[in-house]
Amino acid sequence: MRTIEWRNGAVFTLDQTKLPLETVTLEITTIDQMAEAIRSLRIRGAPLLGAAAAFALALKAYHAQAASSTALLSELEHTAKVIRSTRPTAVNLFWAVDRILSKAQDFSGNIDALKAFVVQEAQRIADEDAEANRAIGKNGAELIKDGDVVLTHCNAGELATVEYGTALGVIRAAVGQGKKIKVIATETRPLLQGARLTAYELKRDGIPVTLITDNMVGYVMHKGLVDCVVVGADRIVQDAVFNKIGTFTVAVLAKEHDVPFYVAAPKSTFDLQHKAADIVIEERNPLEVTSFGGRQVAANGVSVLNPAFDATPLKYVSAIICESRVYSKKDFAKFKTKDAM
Amino acid sequence: MRTIEWRNGAVFTLDQTKLPLETVTLEITTIDQMAEAIRSLRIRGAPLLGAAAAFALALKAYHAQAASSTALLSELEHTAKVIRSTRPTAVNLFWAVDRILSKAQDFSGNIDALKAFVVQEAQRIADEDAEANRAIGKNGAELIKDGDVVLTHCNAGELATVEYGTALGVIRAAVGQGKKIKVIATETRPLLQGARLTAYELKRDGIPVTLITDNMVGYVMHKGLVDCVVVGADRIVQDAVFNKIGTFTVAVLAKEHDVPFYVAAPKSTFDLQHKAADIVIEERNPLEVTSFGGRQVAANGVSVLNPAFDATPLKYVSAIICESRVYSKKDFAKFKTKDAM
Repeated sequence: MRTIEWRNGAVFTLDQTKLPLETVTLEITTIDQMAEAIRSLRIRGAPLLGAAAAFALALKAYHAQAASSTALLSELEHTAKVIRSTRPTAVNLFWAVDRILSKAQDFSGNIDALKAFVVQEAQRIADEDAEANRAIGKNGAELIKDGDVVLTHCNAGELATVEYGTALGVIRAAVGQGKKIKVIATETRPLLQGARLTAYELKRDGIPVTLITDNMVGYVMHKGLVDCVVVGADRIVQDAVFNKIGTFTVAVLAKEHDVPFYVAAPKSTFDLQHKAADIVIEERNPLEVTSFGGRQVAANGVSVLNPAFDATPLKYVSAIICESRVYSKKDFAKFKTKDAM
Repeated sequence: MRTIEWRNGAVFTLDQTKLPLETVTLEITTIDQMAEAIRSLRIRGAPLLGAAAAFALALKAYHAQAASSTALLSELEHTAKVIRSTRPTAVNLFWAVDRILSKAQDFSGNIDALKAFVVQEAQRIADEDAEANRAIGKNGAELIKDGDVVLTHCNAGELATVEYGTALGVIRAAVGQGKKIKVIATETRPLLQGARLTAYELKRDGIPVTLITDNMVGYVMHKGLVDCVVVGADRIVQDAVFNKIGTFTVAVLAKEHDVPFYVAAPKSTFDLQHKAADIVIEERNPLEVTSFGGRQVAANGVSVLNPAFDATPLKYVSAIICESRVYSKKDFAKFKTKDAM
């Protein structure tokens, strides 16, 4: 099964907050359910959020009681607003919503045709993500040598995408070429996507993985245990890569130890209209830091910072692996011009 | 109350694995209890481990049934062996045991006098730690400016020492001079000494503290939120500082952002006979990484690294604050010679 699937007016996906100890499949049929699932990180990972946002519009279209195309378009616009408000940083979510809305607005046909079109377009976004990830994997695998130990942060795997994964797609593709690859996965506090999702996914697929706490990255690099880093991205702007909090820390350590730092992401992650300074970083609930699994771990009432993402300036990035090509350092300057992509 | 106290043949201390949610006082009367408490980190923090090791010998002497000084010495040597085997990296533990054993071996007097001497010497080690920390605080406070935000890792506070703390002693002394200081504390996975102990201790004392996950250190430094770092040490060798895992990661980030990185530690932490390459780093139970707050979080059977410490080469250290003086960068070269201290 893909990480997210559309079946007859319902969206099926795993509740990622329950993994790896429980495998709970969510059946989502309303916009409220989808918004809650995104906000609470039951559905997470930038490319997967793009597909989820697309399917939210498909749900609205499929179940709409609207009497005209105009009324349906207005309902879709309202849905888009709700979905856009769930999480501010991952650009794929905005990209998917905008793509469907814009095509729906240009669509000429009756309401039933429009409903079918929205559902098809959402499915197309999901299919394209699956294809893009395989292409990213193929492009990225060229950068990975036989015997490499690859460090990754958070989960940019199958569970972050419709299928195959971005950063983990690169690793899967390298393994598929017969290269012996080992992975070091950071646990990725506060929500432990590395421990819960990346370790689970790789172990399931028979790819050797060693789990470390986030603060061991310096240790493993200093010991010479890491050949390269591959991470995903939530948004790539003119001068930086936004990704899960902690990515920048890994990038600085990689630079200090001359370890290549690669970002693997589909083009839907690019937002070259903006600079790092323009981007709002989502600040999440302090309880994510002060407690875990309902159990308090920190002193009562302590102040907390909990940014969901950080910005890694491009000077720390060795290459960005897309579905169409690999952007190397010399290409990054072009990100500030319109003909970048 | 001090963090550790001797009262009539018993050692009283807090069970640090229960803080901050429960305040459980341990009453330790046997060597087995003391060894278990050290191994399980109920007692932790390099200077506190020195006092605990000293009091272990005091317990043995106080309760000994030995008929002669020679027999008692032999029992003390056995106790020393048990205590030395508890944790391999913190040098204060070895230092305290060696100091008492060596003085006991040189002692001339009957068995009752020897018993009393061992107890007194252990108490002296505890008293000296309390004094040393205040001197470290005074010396270190000169490096902290009014208005500074100080980042610290793990807990080098009152709870890591007999009283006052080393890194947090520096902060306490600066606050005592009327400087407005804020602290950023890293939670310090896997055992969360930052979240559980540092945040608790500072909040209790009215010093403003903000808790972050370990992987946010890059983020806060990049945002310019950190003026300096102060950490403790478990062992200082000719070319590196051993401290809680994650310290090296913080040090690299500090260097990258031109943030001064200070180490605060008593002289009992110095081991200038050795180089970093000589030191065994304790590898702890994988369950500390695969579970969080007692709850399993990672996939079953995943491989784990769990070094308790890392080595920060001295090139990343701006100064080392001791009870007698502050060693600046130009002093570090002397650590390789006998006249260093």
